[in-house]
Amino acid sequence: MRLTRYTDYAVRVLMHLAVHPERLCSIGEIADAYAVSRNHLMKIVNDLVNAGYVASERGRLGGIRLSRPAAEIRIGELVRHTEGEAGLAECGACIAAPACGLAGALGEALGAFMAVLDGYTLADITRRRAALGALLGTAA
Amino acid sequence: MRLTRYTDYAVRVLMHLAVHPERLCSIGEIADAYAVSRNHLMKIVNDLVNAGYVASERGRLGGIRLSRPAAEIRIGELVRHTEGEAGLAECGACIAAPACGLAGALGEALGAFMAVLDGYTLADITRRRAALGALLGTAA
Repeated sequence: MRLTRYTDYAVRVLMHLAVHPERLCSIGEIADAYAVSRNHLMKIVNDLVNAGYVASERGRLGGIRLSRPAAEIRIGELVRHTEGEAGLAECGACIAAPACGLAGALGEALGAFMAVLDGYTLADITRRRAALGALLGTAA
Repeated sequence: MRLTRYTDYAVRVLMHLAVHPERLCSIGEIADAYAVSRNHLMKIVNDLVNAGYVASERGRLGGIRLSRPAAEIRIGELVRHTEGEAGLAECGACIAAPACGLAGALGEALGAFMAVLDGYTLADITRRRAALGALLGTAA
């Protein structure tokens, strides 16, 4: 069971912004910090702007920042957004689906999974801010 | 977030066997019932035999069956086996991993997910046995 790469990178972008709440960050610096593709991050940042997690300021001195405090961004809410509505299994392609009890069990299990993540905020997972700043190659 | 295709098919094989506890089944009939590749199922059945979920009887009148009652096969235990130990996110490739709080939160969430699935057995998810038998193209 894997989260999508999309979720993985969305969390990383938000973590980077949470480590630097006092300034605007560039997509290039985030791509460099995690050694991932700038183009790929660009799409993710656009989505995070549209979804209200990130604010973008244009211009030569522009950049991106969190649009609300890290303590107000719940990881469960974020993961529900980035993972979307696709099911855990390919029940739609399975002939047994109409009488099968697996989907109900998986739905309940997924609810428990997300409930735990709703107990964590972006601030919680970036509590070691100085250490994260050092790892990401920029002073926190 | 998706379960692997491997888990998906392993559950389907066990469901088919649970619907027909009174006789041996063939891999060919299971492949036909779900319209999936016989070769792919062969590997999964071998693994399920090695893991103690399925018993195989050789010979012209041979076939496969559950090696223990469906009520004694917990879905959580099965999914832990088929999904293996790979993490939910690519933390191993992430520079921030040593100071990041996400892995801990994901581990806790995954525990809650599996705990729910441990509350269901193969018998629970195949309770509508007659309907499943009809859907799978063979009388239950």
